Amino acid sequence: MMQPLDICFSPKLFPAYANKNALVVIVDIFRATTSICSAFQNGATAIHAIADLEQAIKLKKEGHLLAAERNAQKCTDADFGNSPLEFTPDKVQGREIIFTTTNGTQAVEQALKAKQIAIGAFSNITALSSYCVKSNLPIIILCAGWQNHFCLEDTLFAGALVEKILHTEQYVAQSDAVKAAIELWNVAKSDLMNYICKTEHYQRLVKNNADDSVEFCLTMNTTTAVPLYDVNRKKFLLKE
Amino acid sequence: MMQPLDICFSPKLFPAYANKNALVVIVDIFRATTSICSAFQNGATAIHAIADLEQAIKLKKEGHLLAAERNAQKCTDADFGNSPLEFTPDKVQGREIIFTTTNGTQAVEQALKAKQIAIGAFSNITALSSYCVKSNLPIIILCAGWQNHFCLEDTLFAGALVEKILHTEQYVAQSDAVKAAIELWNVAKSDLMNYICKTEHYQRLVKNNADDSVEFCLTMNTTTAVPLYDVNRKKFLLKE
Repeated sequence: MMQPLDICFSPKLFPAYANKNALVVIVDIFRATTSICSAFQNGATAIHAIADLEQAIKLKKEGHLLAAERNAQKCTDADFGNSPLEFTPDKVQGREIIFTTTNGTQAVEQALKAKQIAIGAFSNITALSSYCVKSNLPIIILCAGWQNHFCLEDTLFAGALVEKILHTEQYVAQSDAVKAAIELWNVAKSDLMNYICKTEHYQRLVKNNADDSVEFCLTMNTTTAVPLYDVNRKKFLLKE
Repeated sequence: MMQPLDICFSPKLFPAYANKNALVVIVDIFRATTSICSAFQNGATAIHAIADLEQAIKLKKEGHLLAAERNAQKCTDADFGNSPLEFTPDKVQGREIIFTTTNGTQAVEQALKAKQIAIGAFSNITALSSYCVKSNLPIIILCAGWQNHFCLEDTLFAGALVEKILHTEQYVAQSDAVKAAIELWNVAKSDLMNYICKTEHYQRLVKNNADDSVEFCLTMNTTTAVPLYDVNRKKFLLKE
């Protein structure tokens, strides 16, 4: 039986898409989900995604590292902001990291009732799409967006991931959101960096001197890490 | 000073876009806003947009006509469903109509705090864009969507309207939603009917034997009616 595949453009719309049997792929290309993939790639052992900043700061006291960003800027007392380039092996090897960001970790909280939650980024797109297909579960790609606004970089990633998954002919995707994302990906993919330069979030990163990681965030397959949420341990771990 | 122009893809996201000084254009191409334009074109004197079906049925008892649709089907006791072809001069001339639909009238309720609310459809696009530009207010195009899902036909209309408004160089639109809508409109516009046949809502209309009005819903400039909400009288009237 073909499984359904859909895209939700904002955490705020997620209740209309929610499906307890689904695998939800969380996407926040700039930059939470790209950073989480980098942290695992460089040796982190677990990621705690916490929407509330105060709660995240409390958890840091248990001995973990803290990555905290609000509105594209690093929070005081955090070990990291939200750039994937910060999570180097010398800093993250063998450590657990508390993550709290403007949009990405809010999206994770929306998805907690799903059967599985995975983290998606251009950096792990091929490994992730293989995992998605093997799961044989209904899939919902949840774009973190920006403060409940639609955003292009997450949509383009969703289009790219759908293209890979549909290639297997094991999934069926007929929603308007999927059609729009594929259409936009087809326009953008031949020169993704140039296309992304026109987006709101890129301009926001430039304004905050945080655009050094943009090219990395758009580079495909720098890792095979597929972070998955472990319901019992309440944190993201690498798939075994 | 240039005025801002933005697109909101779902009533659920509207709180993140809301601006008390704005002109909000409500769009529900299939079919509420197309039908409202047709009703005015054919002589209706006012439209009451009511989200709640029971309240709409009560209001009918004041002697007005009732147009009521849920999930693409006409409600019992209604004079009209939601097809723009039903609102013929012999039925609507000189009458006020209560309107309640699955998505469109919910969108109107979201916008009630805005400075002005206008009704948009392909049928009034040129008259509407002239009105928008003359208003010189910030503009938010609010797509009704389908039960909090993104939908293409409203997005394509939004792209077409933005294209017309930006042509005047009096407005500035830099959001990702605007960029996506323009991009999609550029792909679809050369053969809109063919493009729309791929959408979810078209398939839903076909399934409900309600696709007879699709071509009309996509036809531009069959009216110069620009329905505007009158805050004091709590109904839509034609702009003077």
